[in-house]
Amino acid sequence: MTDRFAFRLLARDGAARRGEIRTPHGTVQTPAFMPVGTQGTVKAMYPEQVRALGSDVVLGNTYHLMLRPTAERVARLGGLHKFMNWPHTILTDSGGFQVMSLAQLRKLTENGVTFQSHVDGSRHEMTPERSVEIQQLLGSDIQMQLDECIALPAARDDVERAMRLSLRWAERSRRKFEEMGGPERGQALYGIVQGGDVPDLRVISATELGAMPFEGYSVGGLAVGEPQDVMLRMLEETTPAMPEDKPRYLMGVGTPEDILESVARGIDQFDCVMPTRAGRHGLAYTRFGKVNLKNARHAEDHRPLDEEAECPAARDYSRAYLHHLVKAGEGLAAMLLTWNNLAYYQSLMKGIREAIEAGRFEDFRNETRENWARGDISKLA
Amino acid sequence: MTDRFAFRLLARDGAARRGEIRTPHGTVQTPAFMPVGTQGTVKAMYPEQVRALGSDVVLGNTYHLMLRPTAERVARLGGLHKFMNWPHTILTDSGGFQVMSLAQLRKLTENGVTFQSHVDGSRHEMTPERSVEIQQLLGSDIQMQLDECIALPAARDDVERAMRLSLRWAERSRRKFEEMGGPERGQALYGIVQGGDVPDLRVISATELGAMPFEGYSVGGLAVGEPQDVMLRMLEETTPAMPEDKPRYLMGVGTPEDILESVARGIDQFDCVMPTRAGRHGLAYTRFGKVNLKNARHAEDHRPLDEEAECPAARDYSRAYLHHLVKAGEGLAAMLLTWNNLAYYQSLMKGIREAIEAGRFEDFRNETRENWARGDISKLA
Repeated sequence: MTDRFAFRLLARDGAARRGEIRTPHGTVQTPAFMPVGTQGTVKAMYPEQVRALGSDVVLGNTYHLMLRPTAERVARLGGLHKFMNWPHTILTDSGGFQVMSLAQLRKLTENGVTFQSHVDGSRHEMTPERSVEIQQLLGSDIQMQLDECIALPAARDDVERAMRLSLRWAERSRRKFEEMGGPERGQALYGIVQGGDVPDLRVISATELGAMPFEGYSVGGLAVGEPQDVMLRMLEETTPAMPEDKPRYLMGVGTPEDILESVARGIDQFDCVMPTRAGRHGLAYTRFGKVNLKNARHAEDHRPLDEEAECPAARDYSRAYLHHLVKAGEGLAAMLLTWNNLAYYQSLMKGIREAIEAGRFEDFRNETRENWARGDISKLA
Repeated sequence: MTDRFAFRLLARDGAARRGEIRTPHGTVQTPAFMPVGTQGTVKAMYPEQVRALGSDVVLGNTYHLMLRPTAERVARLGGLHKFMNWPHTILTDSGGFQVMSLAQLRKLTENGVTFQSHVDGSRHEMTPERSVEIQQLLGSDIQMQLDECIALPAARDDVERAMRLSLRWAERSRRKFEEMGGPERGQALYGIVQGGDVPDLRVISATELGAMPFEGYSVGGLAVGEPQDVMLRMLEETTPAMPEDKPRYLMGVGTPEDILESVARGIDQFDCVMPTRAGRHGLAYTRFGKVNLKNARHAEDHRPLDEEAECPAARDYSRAYLHHLVKAGEGLAAMLLTWNNLAYYQSLMKGIREAIEAGRFEDFRNETRENWARGDISKLA
């Protein structure tokens, strides 16, 4: 334990923010990308590698961990940091999102959600209080309130009902978090802004949550099926209504472009399975856009993904070899491409942070977008 | 290219030998364990890790590589060393073993074997000459003659027929290898001793091969279904008939115990999929024997696999966590357990080499066997 949760704004450039979050397990430089460690592992990566890429924080999924190996077992084994050999900051979600997307026989009431495990069919109840309890057992540094996240498009009435329920759950979550001594341990609980694609509901949600003493605020319920321009417009409506002095986390987002554009709209934290999942499906992210290694045109391509990259996965292996590994179904394909992708994401975040500090975020954004638009170099060869 | 193939005996202790093989891509300390890189990758390992564990040489499978990505493609891409990012020594097999175990519609004649690919059904012919040609395209440092390896038990007549055919193929292989300039490039071609479980056939095979100018000699056709004591007895009959001044490679062997006992009978090189395959199936090799991480008794075991090990996989992760990864089907399970297993195998080889140098191989053998017999410590707790 090094410190209590604290957030400090270091620089601004337009709406973009450069900050620093302190937690009991370290310091997180923002804007930050948080690799997803669903079941207590960032898939196909050793934790030391994740750290060496500049990751200050990883995410654990409450839903998955509560079912297997269970939060109680993780607690008996000394908590999630020790369990997964990640002594740095951990953020956990509330479990609500996966309860609604993965679990079976869900039933939502004012009190919470009952559901059946997708692993073994066992029955569980998730309430705001239980979610906090599980996250306390896991011992994460940054915890999330339980909320109701509904898919878009949705009728305004449904969006409002879910948003109001999420506000009531925010209060219950906060009460439980304080009862359990979260603040004394230096941990953080974030409230989650809902309101779908309805600007005034987003503002109500942000304002009411802002009046509660959360350490940080998430923007939930985006990247759930709406077009990118809708998501970005919602951020433009939402972030000005969020507290200035608290970190802002856009949940489950996104592509490199989503991240760049969301930073431009005042977001500080991101998580997404995209770089890790894509890495297991033969897709590489690079400075010049995406490269699909399944494609036969790479079969005799001597070039590495990016010879100027620092990451060995990008620099020391030919596209021909990566293509071969993908076609042959070798585990090393996922290992190298995930490594490359997380390295690219973290180098993008580093570039963003440096650009904000230097007051040249707009230039950086344009250069980065130009490189993406240029595309895979081999097309020009 | 650093050197031409050469073998030097550094020490002996009983029948056990301590030696050094030089190849165009480095020096191999013997007795050596050679991790298997079937399709151009040691499964679930980065090549730098394989090297860091003390591996001086890895094996590539001619059968797999000729079918995908094809030897011609590997050659166009600069050879197997460059392709798989392994600048150290590579040994390739002849492809014969997998032709007989994996391919379909096989037909064996004096000339060679015709077969259908298990990958795409394409038809191929493997002859002694073609096998050398493929290995030359791959550019491996140590190459194998094509032989016929028959499963045991088998009738003496069948064993003798296969052994005699293998001798004729040895001559054809050697001729092709010299025609293609293998010796000038400093590469090695090994002849393969066959003869099943029939001592006098083994001696004939070893003697006749010994009269041909091979750089080294393999013992083939063992670990193909016979009990361990039969295998060890065959080694006792065979190795005294093999040239003293050439390395001896026991193909496809084996368990840590097989290796220890075979070193005691004069073997210098080993390869086996066991440590890598076991690692993908939840099984860990340790100083105290095997640990099956699938077993529920590990679910809350705080202890690492071996807290005294140098390998992070053995030292920094609890058995409980490894159990969780195996149960959850996470790729990190294979990554950590393969790492642990290869680390254990290579530490065993290092111990063997040091013991032979110090003239205390017999003590080392007994201590090692006592530790294995002691079993997993938790049984005693």
